[in-house]
Amino acid sequence: MLGAIEAGGTKFVCAVGNEDGTLVERIQLDTLTPENTIPHVIEFFKNHKIEALGVGSFGPVDIDKNSVTYGNITSTPKPGWKDYPFLQTLKDALQVPMEFNTDVNAAALGEVMLGAAQDVDSCLYITVGTGIGAGAVIQGELLQGLSHPEMGHILVRRHADDAYEGFCPYHGDCLEGMAAGPAIEKRWGKKGVELQDKQEVWELESYYLAQALMQFILTVSPKKIIMGGGVMKQKQLFPLIQKKVQELLNGYVAVPQILENIDQYIVPPGLGDDAGITGALMLAKRALEK
Amino acid sequence: MLGAIEAGGTKFVCAVGNEDGTLVERIQLDTLTPENTIPHVIEFFKNHKIEALGVGSFGPVDIDKNSVTYGNITSTPKPGWKDYPFLQTLKDALQVPMEFNTDVNAAALGEVMLGAAQDVDSCLYITVGTGIGAGAVIQGELLQGLSHPEMGHILVRRHADDAYEGFCPYHGDCLEGMAAGPAIEKRWGKKGVELQDKQEVWELESYYLAQALMQFILTVSPKKIIMGGGVMKQKQLFPLIQKKVQELLNGYVAVPQILENIDQYIVPPGLGDDAGITGALMLAKRALEK
Repeated sequence: MLGAIEAGGTKFVCAVGNEDGTLVERIQLDTLTPENTIPHVIEFFKNHKIEALGVGSFGPVDIDKNSVTYGNITSTPKPGWKDYPFLQTLKDALQVPMEFNTDVNAAALGEVMLGAAQDVDSCLYITVGTGIGAGAVIQGELLQGLSHPEMGHILVRRHADDAYEGFCPYHGDCLEGMAAGPAIEKRWGKKGVELQDKQEVWELESYYLAQALMQFILTVSPKKIIMGGGVMKQKQLFPLIQKKVQELLNGYVAVPQILENIDQYIVPPGLGDDAGITGALMLAKRALEK
Repeated sequence: MLGAIEAGGTKFVCAVGNEDGTLVERIQLDTLTPENTIPHVIEFFKNHKIEALGVGSFGPVDIDKNSVTYGNITSTPKPGWKDYPFLQTLKDALQVPMEFNTDVNAAALGEVMLGAAQDVDSCLYITVGTGIGAGAVIQGELLQGLSHPEMGHILVRRHADDAYEGFCPYHGDCLEGMAAGPAIEKRWGKKGVELQDKQEVWELESYYLAQALMQFILTVSPKKIIMGGGVMKQKQLFPLIQKKVQELLNGYVAVPQILENIDQYIVPPGLGDDAGITGALMLAKRALEK
């Protein structure tokens, strides 16, 4: 049996499952302080006698295996989590092989191995929710360099009719600042889910998200783009984004995936809301194989 | 002996050299039509009895080894080169193992193996000249997905004081349209090399290039960024770009390479003008090893 954790800023999902991605049992916990949350996590996995564990975590996290702080959450406003030795605590308690990465890199891995990107060896997984984050698998490997990607914070061009200042504390009107869930709520005075029928909301939202996708396509050239998260439950966004990406690229990347079949190129997660936890399970599988 | 081609839109550099990167002999040819240029290329390599050949080419090119048009130049306004079976012609004539990639991916490989990025396993190589292109090595592998990167065409935010419309035929005021050599000349009425002392030229140029670097850092998180090409001979650009990248990121990517040692993070090519041809030689080395 393999173990998986999808550690989010508001909830922890812990699951056990098989190498084929089947999730056998899961629990969900509120993300309180580490002292309150982690003992329950450890107890769950001790009861299931797991052989390996995969962790997809909120961040920023240190995913450099050569670093002394590998597996730590590095900086977060959440009380108790800054510099918390997340992975080391789990290793000390459970004593099984583990792989640790970002939640979105885990989701990208899940989608490549078992979801909407099974037919290719590279994909981008973007979540648009209370924040915007992205992970990527490129030629089979999880994207990692100096740090993990932070694609949610790229710059976008402001729409001429949009006076909203953006809520990102670091960059103001970066992508996350302009297009994550809180930006929709602050700009329009209601949550996105209550604005479903307001065409202008989704026109503007897709204006920003399509810009971001253009940048990502030109930079990493993913073979599939998967968009999940709460905001992307508004399925009317997909055709708007697909059309705007084509218009922005303007024929420059002349491949059929973009010119002709963009509805199969920019898609929702094949694993639905389970992309992250399934990806974490696949991280456990990788840990066991190593 | 290994062979290397750096195929540019205006000149072809052909060289022979050793596995350690030493270039033994080289010739330079004008890029005319394939019928005029390629016979000279083939003759040069036949005279040197090479064991393998590496090609770094201008593009767009097809670098997908599973594609029927692998090694072709796919679309270019240069007469005779559109859909030209570049690699296949060389293979038929020379009958040695070959590796084919973009000129900028080759340069990135050269810099990781023998240049300014020898100490790391990932780098971005950006050339700013008549166009803007970038290649990348990530975790030791050349970046490739749906196609090769086309980072030169990402969108940038226009400076409030800049009325120049941009010259990119596809995107108007994308990065290349606003910051490649021709944009400088059209905006200021003189070539960059004649504007060396005009501070405002380089302030504006670094404004656009720093935005691009911010996007690349957040998206692929390279361990080093190498900037070459004609425009980057203006060495005064480096400190301007470094400072603006720090300001734009605003502490968000909290690693010492960016916060403290950015002058060693954004650097000129260690191989100078030989990054591309040396990288092509390293492609030949890879071809031989396979």
